Amino acid sequence: MIYSPTVEPTGAGLDDEPASTLIARSVLARSGRITELEHFHRWMADEKRRSHMDVRTVPLESLRGWRVDGHTGNIGHDSGKFFTIEGLDAKVPGGPVPHWQQPIINQPEVGILGILVKQFNGVLHCLMQAKIEPGNCNGLQLSPTLQATRSNYTRVHQGSAVPYLDYFRDSTQHRVLADVRQSEQGSWFHRKRNRNMVVEVSEDLEVLDGFCWLTLGQLHQLLAVDDLVNMDARTVLSCMPFAGPDLLALFADSRDEFTAALIRSYSAEAVARHTMAEVLGWITDVRTEQVCHVELIPLREVSHWRHEDGKISHDSGLFFNVIGASITAAGREVRAWSQPLIEPCDEGVVAFLAKQIDGVLHLLVQAKTEPGYVDVIELAPTVQCSVSNYDALPPEARPPLLDTVLSAGHEQLRFDAVHSEEGGRFYHARNRYLVVEVASDFEPEHPSYRWLTLAQLVDLLRHSNYINVQARSLIACLHGLSG
Amino acid sequence: MIYSPTVEPTGAGLDDEPASTLIARSVLARSGRITELEHFHRWMADEKRRSHMDVRTVPLESLRGWRVDGHTGNIGHDSGKFFTIEGLDAKVPGGPVPHWQQPIINQPEVGILGILVKQFNGVLHCLMQAKIEPGNCNGLQLSPTLQATRSNYTRVHQGSAVPYLDYFRDSTQHRVLADVRQSEQGSWFHRKRNRNMVVEVSEDLEVLDGFCWLTLGQLHQLLAVDDLVNMDARTVLSCMPFAGPDLLALFADSRDEFTAALIRSYSAEAVARHTMAEVLGWITDVRTEQVCHVELIPLREVSHWRHEDGKISHDSGLFFNVIGASITAAGREVRAWSQPLIEPCDEGVVAFLAKQIDGVLHLLVQAKTEPGYVDVIELAPTVQCSVSNYDALPPEARPPLLDTVLSAGHEQLRFDAVHSEEGGRFYHARNRYLVVEVASDFEPEHPSYRWLTLAQLVDLLRHSNYINVQARSLIACLHGLSG
Repeated sequence: MIYSPTVEPTGAGLDDEPASTLIARSVLARSGRITELEHFHRWMADEKRRSHMDVRTVPLESLRGWRVDGHTGNIGHDSGKFFTIEGLDAKVPGGPVPHWQQPIINQPEVGILGILVKQFNGVLHCLMQAKIEPGNCNGLQLSPTLQATRSNYTRVHQGSAVPYLDYFRDSTQHRVLADVRQSEQGSWFHRKRNRNMVVEVSEDLEVLDGFCWLTLGQLHQLLAVDDLVNMDARTVLSCMPFAGPDLLALFADSRDEFTAALIRSYSAEAVARHTMAEVLGWITDVRTEQVCHVELIPLREVSHWRHEDGKISHDSGLFFNVIGASITAAGREVRAWSQPLIEPCDEGVVAFLAKQIDGVLHLLVQAKTEPGYVDVIELAPTVQCSVSNYDALPPEARPPLLDTVLSAGHEQLRFDAVHSEEGGRFYHARNRYLVVEVASDFEPEHPSYRWLTLAQLVDLLRHSNYINVQARSLIACLHGLSG
Repeated sequence: MIYSPTVEPTGAGLDDEPASTLIARSVLARSGRITELEHFHRWMADEKRRSHMDVRTVPLESLRGWRVDGHTGNIGHDSGKFFTIEGLDAKVPGGPVPHWQQPIINQPEVGILGILVKQFNGVLHCLMQAKIEPGNCNGLQLSPTLQATRSNYTRVHQGSAVPYLDYFRDSTQHRVLADVRQSEQGSWFHRKRNRNMVVEVSEDLEVLDGFCWLTLGQLHQLLAVDDLVNMDARTVLSCMPFAGPDLLALFADSRDEFTAALIRSYSAEAVARHTMAEVLGWITDVRTEQVCHVELIPLREVSHWRHEDGKISHDSGLFFNVIGASITAAGREVRAWSQPLIEPCDEGVVAFLAKQIDGVLHLLVQAKTEPGYVDVIELAPTVQCSVSNYDALPPEARPPLLDTVLSAGHEQLRFDAVHSEEGGRFYHARNRYLVVEVASDFEPEHPSYRWLTLAQLVDLLRHSNYINVQARSLIACLHGLSG
């Protein structure tokens, strides 16, 4: 029984379609304001030619505008803003490594990662930006409309105004499809969260240089390209409310069994291995029982790490380095600045095992403790690691299902692409993202795993602190397989 | 389209009815294992005769088993367990009081508040306990099956084993209807959370002395009685997944317009004033923009509070006192212990304004900052205060809608009862709980309020940190009006 209101919901007309229908139609649209992806690639190549960034490694202690605190060894900006590099002591009894110390980025401000969307001829388009970042291995990548720290948009940079900011800062006049604070890398960030926003506008707006409109169907095809859709874009795309029983009708002609199972997985009515009450109860149980004591300590006191030759590294040469970079950007505007960056020592592997349970695709998630999480654990992909890190750790620390992923046959690979992590903080940080389908009788032996449907993951993504950034990237990639 | 699984969901048979249907049928059952409520009241009176508790006020500094730290003035148990009384410094720029200090209970352990439920002749019954607590003004109140701190159940007390604990500690063999950590009083507790659990059992179990089976319909009638259903029972009852379109069919013969609007409000299909995306976006926005700096400080340094005459009080004589109590319980077992208690100086008012929007009941919630919350704000009732506290504060601090509640005519009062807060920590802490219906054109002038349906509140109650304990109590009372 539906009661039609006399008072209209804020910012949404009554004739608006449900967000999930709008989104599904855009997923199916392989053509939009840009008719052929070839045109997009040509535009991107033009943008690349017009922009240039020079990134040079410099010693941490001589970074202009930053200082190493004489007492703690922590590294911070002269303004007191942006972020600091501090030390962290983590105790996780029962974990593969029960106690360790490491450097970590402390960035308490909540920034905004936002995509503006707008219907053209009834098809939702996303306003995307070609943006260059110092840590990107290839310079320019495709970014959300807005990607701004609070220091950015309150103008600590003293740079030019942030384009399209006002649509996100005052969204009351627009339809908000998603607005949720999500965590980022819990191994490298201390409790960092960014606001992931999708805001629909109906009025005309000027498309500035460096921006373009793409349908979700087009973005999804681009997710199959290595190092193109940046992390910030992937996490916002994962937060699109892409679920609902009506998807089944829209996607009626799914060609193969896997895609059909994937589409069914978006339906809240599909029978899932576990009810949501069970999934939430499991998360509550792990968060109550798993002890995780984390404390910020002076960077100088972090054991097994040394600040030497202008950078901070682990004794083993593994994990990551903290390096300094001096950056000059030339293009529409010329800017020069310096900053620390995290440089991982190896490429990582991020993989979901997927299987069909009675025709519904389920993803195997793990409850993963990372020291930077706000609430003990978040749900992570089946496998998430840098393989070489385990050279320094006891064999039992090796992730349980890593070998299942690495030995998967070509016929099991549903997705396989390399993507970059946030180029504003990480230097050449790349992960191989995989979706590996296993037989329906495959079961993990380890108790920290559960099979979830996409509808369940999309439901959890409306809230903070449930799905980690690596899982969100892979969920965006899975969305990309639906079209 | 529904796909039936070959693998059964953990702990739930396929022939199980949806939890919401089971719950609704129990709400309608005014008779169960106990056929008449008169029998219940007789049983409760018997229990009261068999139990006795002597609570004497003693100076904080002479509490047996507790010590006042010579350096900080903090009060803690010799074992280091249970809880401490510490100081708190809170800065909430833009709030009615932008900066203050106060004593606060620090109880980092997550306890369990659990209700066991079981079907008898297809009707769900709750296993409730008649439990005496030192802070209860009337001694014995009706409590959940289990109400235990971690110190309790790991036996710091050295008391007898905690009855029914195992059903909650290992719930994998049972259907879990709810399992979520919820906050408690954010003005008196620093980040305290308890696990609220509802676990369905199918096997026979022994009903121990002091326990009885009641239907939800019976419990709901008892919620109208002053000081009977304790806070822990109310918060667990509020977390029952009591929503779903099928409720409309079950409650088809609602007698009056208000009850009909209430029942419609439980349907996820009812058109709500705001979409969930808007509600979640609003919460994200407030949590991002509202600054709330909270820091634990030594109790000795808390300004405007003094430790004198064996207790801690505010200079104004308002707010609350921290007192010491020496307790002797006689009944099935004899126990004696001492502990600090928070004694509020006045009874409080906790009220929802409710209105019908196109036949669907909406409740007016506020985004309320309390210093003990984990995440800046939680959704609170329209009004939640102790009226006399405002004698010490500037007039503009008076809660905006308090007068609307206090001046409501008898014909607007849908619910009105006095309930006690947690008697294990609070001494004679009572609130008048009200639901006041206002005309459908009533709108608050203050921007921190939103009209939500019960389906939306029930949805948010599956997750931590959204709905505060006072709102949960009132939601339990609203459930009670549906039958």
